[in-house]
Amino acid sequence: MSKPFMFEKPLGMRDTLPAFYETKRNISKKVEAETERWGYRPIETPTLEYYDTVGDASAILDQQLFKLLDQQGNTLVLRPDMTAPIARVAGSSLKDQPFPLRLSYQTHLFRAQQREGGRPAEFEQMGVELVGDGTASADGEVIALMIAALKEAGLENFQVAVGHIGYVNALLLDVVGSEERAGVLRRYLYEKNYVGYRHHVKSLPLSSIDEKRLLGLLKLRGGYSKIEEAKEIVYNGEASKALEDLEQLWEVLEGYGVTEHLKFDLNLVMHMSYYTGVVFEGYGSKLGFPLSSGGRYDELVQKFNRPAQATGFGIRLDLLVEALGKTEEEPKQTCIIFSKERRREAIEKARHLRNEGKQVVLQDLQGVESVDQLSETFEDVIYFIGKKKGEGVNE
Amino acid sequence: MSKPFMFEKPLGMRDTLPAFYETKRNISKKVEAETERWGYRPIETPTLEYYDTVGDASAILDQQLFKLLDQQGNTLVLRPDMTAPIARVAGSSLKDQPFPLRLSYQTHLFRAQQREGGRPAEFEQMGVELVGDGTASADGEVIALMIAALKEAGLENFQVAVGHIGYVNALLLDVVGSEERAGVLRRYLYEKNYVGYRHHVKSLPLSSIDEKRLLGLLKLRGGYSKIEEAKEIVYNGEASKALEDLEQLWEVLEGYGVTEHLKFDLNLVMHMSYYTGVVFEGYGSKLGFPLSSGGRYDELVQKFNRPAQATGFGIRLDLLVEALGKTEEEPKQTCIIFSKERRREAIEKARHLRNEGKQVVLQDLQGVESVDQLSETFEDVIYFIGKKKGEGVNE
Repeated sequence: MSKPFMFEKPLGMRDTLPAFYETKRNISKKVEAETERWGYRPIETPTLEYYDTVGDASAILDQQLFKLLDQQGNTLVLRPDMTAPIARVAGSSLKDQPFPLRLSYQTHLFRAQQREGGRPAEFEQMGVELVGDGTASADGEVIALMIAALKEAGLENFQVAVGHIGYVNALLLDVVGSEERAGVLRRYLYEKNYVGYRHHVKSLPLSSIDEKRLLGLLKLRGGYSKIEEAKEIVYNGEASKALEDLEQLWEVLEGYGVTEHLKFDLNLVMHMSYYTGVVFEGYGSKLGFPLSSGGRYDELVQKFNRPAQATGFGIRLDLLVEALGKTEEEPKQTCIIFSKERRREAIEKARHLRNEGKQVVLQDLQGVESVDQLSETFEDVIYFIGKKKGEGVNE
Repeated sequence: MSKPFMFEKPLGMRDTLPAFYETKRNISKKVEAETERWGYRPIETPTLEYYDTVGDASAILDQQLFKLLDQQGNTLVLRPDMTAPIARVAGSSLKDQPFPLRLSYQTHLFRAQQREGGRPAEFEQMGVELVGDGTASADGEVIALMIAALKEAGLENFQVAVGHIGYVNALLLDVVGSEERAGVLRRYLYEKNYVGYRHHVKSLPLSSIDEKRLLGLLKLRGGYSKIEEAKEIVYNGEASKALEDLEQLWEVLEGYGVTEHLKFDLNLVMHMSYYTGVVFEGYGSKLGFPLSSGGRYDELVQKFNRPAQATGFGIRLDLLVEALGKTEEEPKQTCIIFSKERRREAIEKARHLRNEGKQVVLQDLQGVESVDQLSETFEDVIYFIGKKKGEGVNE
């Protein structure tokens, strides 16, 4: 009675088995506790949103959206990110609460994948949004909180790369002159395709100075000194504002004592088109790709009729677990196997052990195919079998 | 810049704001701890499944399914219940683990709604599945665990109605003779439309004895004595097996000391067509509808090539919160408001208070629209403002 797809899951969809689930849950509790101590309050939004509302604002590539029609013929999407829904809530259900709002979430996000064996199409993300605060203190707070949360989760070696979308835009526009040409270069940067970027730059009809400036962008990765180097490449109004933001941000993060984790990366470009200022990504030592990211988005919330500057981060829970590189040990469970006549004794024993906080499986002997095979999966086994016999503990 | 749907959510979709979220989370932690003590291990399955696999096996009405097409043209559904996906996992990822399997979950389920103001289209459910054990001990365990979990969550007055699909089927078939005619009556029972059931029974060309038997079914609600009454109405092979199951179940639940919460309800019919034996529903005192339900499904798992008897329950988290009738109090948060020059002091103070376990919002004065309005939302406010001034605590 086998059907096509019988055991299969849709492309990019995964089951999470107990050991991994427990690891993930224990890590997420630590992150949650940290965001709570920093005064962020948790919210939840629906899995499905109108495409016209949130799908559009999310600025995820259209082909990555899971879309469906509701019974009224409207297009719905499975939530591809959480920033846009929180902006919607800030402008509606929470519109009477004074800014700044500090909100946190832990949720599943959905991005359709093109091929098997690639990225997951559904993944869990934890994050915060600080809505209604345009200060460098706000940018610094979310980065410091992200660092605190990663540390709390047990991550030791990690780096946060910090850039500024305003600086990249200022340089690209200043050199290539049009938003369209800048967009081509920005796409290489977003894809972290630096070879492609270099080739493309060299193919452009530029003066050798301008070519050097564009190639110089790729070298703007490192410590505080990169700010001065950046000024040498472009220092018009927008660039100057961006570099000032970064200087102030550094000062805030020095106050938090976390600059050891920071490096500037001025060619950082994020896939979310709503970012307007500081952007950042967190890297675990074992991963070549970011496990967390975020930035400032000062123009998104006004789409929901409540203009507000805002900043936030998201941590990919699956990637954090991977970066930590450990799986929870199997829990130590006790199994009590009983025969019918001694069920009450067995229930009493189970109750007693559970009250002590132990994990106890209570098992009717008649429901077991192979006692030997089952017993192997437990730390210890206690038998209540046969009338009048004493309690026998398996060794 | 307003769009249609700007602030709207799709039909039946809801936002969960902090106070309700925190209440829900605290309750779910208690339920989770209880299922863990009983040896159940948590798993997670994808939000999207193939319609041909799980959508079909779930036996939810087709119009209640959220369906979409993937990029290969296959029909996907948003998971409408969790029993079928767990059966899939038992037959695939966990196929080498010996029966019985004890699995738990906490997840979002999706059922499309026809009109606004009705039931939610997305809701959270916690539950367990005990797969590979056909004993009355197994049925009793899941009911006893459900009761323990509801108590642990703080629910005091609740009842569990227990029926048996085998008894209903035996009686209906015995009287009306065909599965089709029995189906009509079963539908009235599933809808709890007892007026409609009575009318329909009276419209059938039955002997007065048979009519009395069918109407008598509605009176089979109450204590242990109902088993004897049930035998008087029908006692063929299937009915006798069903009533024996219930007698054994009662004995098991006496062993657990939970029969005070039980009543038999022999006309209980569940919407899930996969149930094959004992079925049950839990009612909170303040609700007219069940907040939890479950039963035995001995034929579902074999659809995934691993024949197994199984039983389980699910608790609707939103309805449990409603039945408990309380919302968490707002957390007591401290706010530290600082001016730029004294940021470091403020950060130090926040770190100190957070280390003591306090929830502390750290706020740059420059990021605040109205200090008065913001201050009102906090338990206490500490200011670090202006050079060289002492720390001032707001009263």
